[in-house]
Amino acid sequence: MSFLPKRLMSSITIKPTPSKAHHHYPLPSSSFPAGFVLGGVHAGVKKKAGVPDLAVILSTSERPTTAAACFTRNAFKAAPVLVSNEILKKNGGYARAVVVNSGCANAVTGKQGMDDAWAMVEATDGLLSKSSKSEFEHETLVMSTGVIGQNLPISKIVAGIKSQSSATLGSDFSAWERAAQAFMTTDTFPKLRSRTFTIGGVEYRMAGMDKGAGMIHPDMGPAGTTFSSGGFKQLHATLLGCIMTDAAVSPKSLQSALTYAVDRSFNSISVDGDMSTNDSIYVLANGAASNGVVIDEDMDKQGYEVFKKELTDFAADLAKLVVRDGEGATKFVTVTVKGAPSYKDAHNIASRISTSALVKTALYGEDANWGRILAATGSVPLLPSSSTGAAPVIDPTKVNVTFVPSDGTSALPVLVNGEPENVDEVRAKEILSLEDFEVVVELGMGGDAEAEAQYWTCDFSYEYVRINGDYRS
Amino acid sequence: MSFLPKRLMSSITIKPTPSKAHHHYPLPSSSFPAGFVLGGVHAGVKKKAGVPDLAVILSTSERPTTAAACFTRNAFKAAPVLVSNEILKKNGGYARAVVVNSGCANAVTGKQGMDDAWAMVEATDGLLSKSSKSEFEHETLVMSTGVIGQNLPISKIVAGIKSQSSATLGSDFSAWERAAQAFMTTDTFPKLRSRTFTIGGVEYRMAGMDKGAGMIHPDMGPAGTTFSSGGFKQLHATLLGCIMTDAAVSPKSLQSALTYAVDRSFNSISVDGDMSTNDSIYVLANGAASNGVVIDEDMDKQGYEVFKKELTDFAADLAKLVVRDGEGATKFVTVTVKGAPSYKDAHNIASRISTSALVKTALYGEDANWGRILAATGSVPLLPSSSTGAAPVIDPTKVNVTFVPSDGTSALPVLVNGEPENVDEVRAKEILSLEDFEVVVELGMGGDAEAEAQYWTCDFSYEYVRINGDYRS
Repeated sequence: MSFLPKRLMSSITIKPTPSKAHHHYPLPSSSFPAGFVLGGVHAGVKKKAGVPDLAVILSTSERPTTAAACFTRNAFKAAPVLVSNEILKKNGGYARAVVVNSGCANAVTGKQGMDDAWAMVEATDGLLSKSSKSEFEHETLVMSTGVIGQNLPISKIVAGIKSQSSATLGSDFSAWERAAQAFMTTDTFPKLRSRTFTIGGVEYRMAGMDKGAGMIHPDMGPAGTTFSSGGFKQLHATLLGCIMTDAAVSPKSLQSALTYAVDRSFNSISVDGDMSTNDSIYVLANGAASNGVVIDEDMDKQGYEVFKKELTDFAADLAKLVVRDGEGATKFVTVTVKGAPSYKDAHNIASRISTSALVKTALYGEDANWGRILAATGSVPLLPSSSTGAAPVIDPTKVNVTFVPSDGTSALPVLVNGEPENVDEVRAKEILSLEDFEVVVELGMGGDAEAEAQYWTCDFSYEYVRINGDYRS
Repeated sequence: MSFLPKRLMSSITIKPTPSKAHHHYPLPSSSFPAGFVLGGVHAGVKKKAGVPDLAVILSTSERPTTAAACFTRNAFKAAPVLVSNEILKKNGGYARAVVVNSGCANAVTGKQGMDDAWAMVEATDGLLSKSSKSEFEHETLVMSTGVIGQNLPISKIVAGIKSQSSATLGSDFSAWERAAQAFMTTDTFPKLRSRTFTIGGVEYRMAGMDKGAGMIHPDMGPAGTTFSSGGFKQLHATLLGCIMTDAAVSPKSLQSALTYAVDRSFNSISVDGDMSTNDSIYVLANGAASNGVVIDEDMDKQGYEVFKKELTDFAADLAKLVVRDGEGATKFVTVTVKGAPSYKDAHNIASRISTSALVKTALYGEDANWGRILAATGSVPLLPSSSTGAAPVIDPTKVNVTFVPSDGTSALPVLVNGEPENVDEVRAKEILSLEDFEVVVELGMGGDAEAEAQYWTCDFSYEYVRINGDYRS
């Protein structure tokens, strides 16, 4: 700590933020799930001609397509959140389409906003093949993101939806890429990933996209809850994500796998600590690659666990892209908390470290400031023990803090059993000047492997202040 | 929301932060409590000659001096916190002196740190008049703030303490000012206030000082708790405050009044959302102006309530000075939450709004961005109702957000019953360009006047990033 104030007396020259474009690259079409067609088009929500602002995703599978969602726990929920939740609840976890617009959040637009969200659903329903098996009135989930306080240009959007067909929608990389582009707001690159996995000898595929890049600190719960009314109160910037797989998964197991995955992925990221009002993650499982086997927790626990792990890892991949492209971010930092009394405690502490302004400015300054990490750690109240009812107490002499570089070189302990190391500042600077590194905090309180949580965060830069202090000007 | 990324491509010119020096000014000596002598000297902790870095505060009253404290709830508590808590607990709420050093936090200094804190206590005990009534081994509370990981220059400090006497210590403004200066770290001005008040026809005085200016988001609980061991793990930057009064107050009532006051003052401020490990507030009541009446909750409820209100208002005055002088602060913003189901809910929501990076950057940008305020409000889980066990639900159509200027001109509603107003942007800019203004959020959920809480916060500026991203360079 300095003793004289460092008041700002002159202008600052701030280095340009490095481009993140290298995190977007072509993916093989064979890695995309069978039985989905999709695309992104310019419907006219955004002013600039040709920029995709409307994504349509349809399942063409002949098997039932199950769907699950996690929605923001914010008290002020968006119209698309309320509409999509209602549909999922009514359908018991079945839906065959997703429609997404960017450029306008359909937010704080009153009853009109609800009508518009329903109009998007109905128009997209019309693109689905008539399935004799379908007993559902609506089969589309909807998402919106962009400016607030404006009504959607709904006729343009509905026209945009209706102009889609099997001729315009595709299933190759460029179709997936266009759809991912249509999700973007302040994102600097489209966020798209895919993977293959095998369960019981059957190969499945999973692909999806998401977007950020500010008001990112999601805490989402499973769909199917009864939400409060008044979902027309709505804001800007959010996390949206959509994952498609050609596995067949029962509705209940799809929701439970997604809830687990979201807790360990999208609910474990922070850009600025601010929770949005329409964070939404959807997953569709259309069974197009299934040999008739339906993944279900109660029928085949082992197969379900494999699926849950694949979904969790995939969701984490997508979630990390949001942090990498966080507003003003120059660093991608993994915060790992080990040896906590419970997973929830570990998660709470990792969240607090990941949102600390002092920690995040130190990361920006490439300063291995373990003191700020320790202060953030100690500020989190631990949960009462279920056996004794009393909150456990951290023993400072058992606490370790370590910086782990991403380049495979050796880790740097900065606090060992509560004693600060005589840190090699040159080595510390080497690690902290990497784009990626990990901060590990070990509390030494638990033996349970579950009492470990990871969070992904970015640094707090001048550019963050510029983007958000200069938002509407 | 913009749709194209605003990546930083060129240097930014940032305006200098305005000086805060006008918040420090002379106070009449008659407003200081009787029976205290104090001073601030340069003991040599700080390098720069003549800068006060050691404050000594002694009660000279012949009546018993009671003392109370609130300490940080951080799991990693400082040596001075542990030592002071132990003395208060052992003495049952009696202490006659306070010793404070700045420049070195006596932090992460192991057993030596504990020994040093005790040495400061003992040296200051030696300055107290021998009172035949005193049965206490130690009568001094201690505080330290400054750099971490270094041992105190304890011989210099002890020599500094021992050089004090009734000849060097004083009771006029300059003595109080020097003591307040000795508290400072990154503060740009000494924080000193005084007031007089009357209970039962007797006039009393109260005066005190505090310091900030970073790692400020206190959550302090009453003294007397058994803390965990290992208090030598310790950090930098903190809130320290000390209040003296010449009223006589019973130990129990002094602690209960302070606990109440701290919740509504120091526990209701935020600079950066980060809780320090040695936030400490002490109050000494020496009875020097008492006519024999001891203020006690059980003996005279009405007198106690007056005292509690005076202490609360005074603590709030001191707490607000910390926010005004927060690192990088250009605004002083009062966040008021009304109509919540409970005081705790109102306080939690006000805290969340006050720490939101998006809200704080909008305040810096002088942007009446009610959307970010609403998102922060909605992200706070409400406490379960004690009658039903279920958490109450916010009705968005009852929510109001208003900006209130400090200059007496009319308030600006931006959200009325959940509907956004067509805001006059010129008027909004007028209000937000003031140094002081208030944001009022009304939830419309409670009729109880207690279900209202205030928080004081500042904005998030480029300078905050500079101070804390450039901390050790």
